[in-house]
Amino acid sequence: MKLDVAAVAHTAADAAGDVIQRYFRLLPEVETKSDDSPVTLADQGAESAIRAVLTTYTPEFGIIGEEMGGNATGRMTWVIDPIDGTRAFITGRPIFATLIALLDDGVPVLGLIDQPITGERWLAHDGRLHFTGRHGRPGTRRIFSLADAELSCTSPDMFSPAQRGQFSNLAGTCRRVTYGGDAYAYGLLALGQIDVIAEAGLKPWDWASIVPIIEAAGGAVTDWQGRRLALDGPGEVLALGDRAQRDAAIAALNQSAA
Amino acid sequence: MKLDVAAVAHTAADAAGDVIQRYFRLLPEVETKSDDSPVTLADQGAESAIRAVLTTYTPEFGIIGEEMGGNATGRMTWVIDPIDGTRAFITGRPIFATLIALLDDGVPVLGLIDQPITGERWLAHDGRLHFTGRHGRPGTRRIFSLADAELSCTSPDMFSPAQRGQFSNLAGTCRRVTYGGDAYAYGLLALGQIDVIAEAGLKPWDWASIVPIIEAAGGAVTDWQGRRLALDGPGEVLALGDRAQRDAAIAALNQSAA
Repeated sequence: MKLDVAAVAHTAADAAGDVIQRYFRLLPEVETKSDDSPVTLADQGAESAIRAVLTTYTPEFGIIGEEMGGNATGRMTWVIDPIDGTRAFITGRPIFATLIALLDDGVPVLGLIDQPITGERWLAHDGRLHFTGRHGRPGTRRIFSLADAELSCTSPDMFSPAQRGQFSNLAGTCRRVTYGGDAYAYGLLALGQIDVIAEAGLKPWDWASIVPIIEAAGGAVTDWQGRRLALDGPGEVLALGDRAQRDAAIAALNQSAA
Repeated sequence: MKLDVAAVAHTAADAAGDVIQRYFRLLPEVETKSDDSPVTLADQGAESAIRAVLTTYTPEFGIIGEEMGGNATGRMTWVIDPIDGTRAFITGRPIFATLIALLDDGVPVLGLIDQPITGERWLAHDGRLHFTGRHGRPGTRRIFSLADAELSCTSPDMFSPAQRGQFSNLAGTCRRVTYGGDAYAYGLLALGQIDVIAEAGLKPWDWASIVPIIEAAGGAVTDWQGRRLALDGPGEVLALGDRAQRDAAIAALNQSAA
């Protein structure tokens, strides 16, 4: 019997969503991690729920998670982030997400983004994207040029001074910048609502799930030099709905200050 | 028979929500206003729907709206914004809001915030706040000091250079800053999820509805000098969940650069 990894990912996301529903806007306490990112009981409970499902159905796969570490010894490795966008979660904004990816020899082959409060889910596998939600359809948007582009990033605070300058260059070529959204914004890009996302400091569990989703929706994800994202890279991520805009976006990110 | 203005506001918000549901993430075209804020067909359709309800039930009241102008000749005046947070709407984020306020001689006596995609609604009237939604309860949060405060504003781009410096001073006294949310963030403050919001450039239709909601939830809304907001003021808005932090927040906003 062939293992249905998409069904496993759906089951794990359902389990995480049940935990998250209980804690959203009802936080008994909040920890502070060394990197100042908030970790809630919901985060830990959701990660435990996901791990319980994954180890039951795919005991031979590795698991890498943000909160509890993990191993990548197996060839097939799950990469999970129970609550991406903990700032959004802690302040009650329903635009955080549960992220689940499956890597085959380091390459993401399955990606899932789940928003348990709005009941939206993106799952890409074998090059096909399935979206569950009342509003929107899978598929990125074509644009004439970056001058028509909706640009997004979670927060200007995620950049170093040099990166902030690069982002400002890109922003100067785009129509508009909107902040917020974390991984959820990549889901919106896969629905043709956002055209460009440029972020920095992302870890593999932040971006592994979004790569298959955006590629299956017709877009592209690279680093800020146009290269494929690497697990040990610096976490500079560029996502484009329209692949034809990639050279222009890379050029804008890397132009010299006049 | 006494006029039930809360019922009128609910009916108007329902009508707006029906229009907005149809257009969310399905935009046939987008206009650009002179101030570069996007105006969608949803915005115009929702305002027409609200006006139809208000003129039917309260023909003697004035109406002031963002998109179609209006008059304030009546003593009782509705102030409406069919889609506050058009950037969020246009990029598919379900954290925009429909705003409806009722002014009695310039003072907001009723406020409504509605999020039609998540199905959440805040309505304050006669000092009482009613919240409809699956997550959260009305009531602001008490904190020991601003060092514990979640601070929020829609975007750093909303500030002038001087205002940005003032906001940075305030941010330096708070625990964390999260961006995004427009009026929806004030609703989250009224649920105890956010502690402080400081914004600038807000128009009466942006803030009139939030004042009764936050006051009924136990918080306070003033300008950046601690004064009551005025219809002809500069639109600098400070909202606090814990009124005891007001002096500290005002001081942080107005401290001299060292």
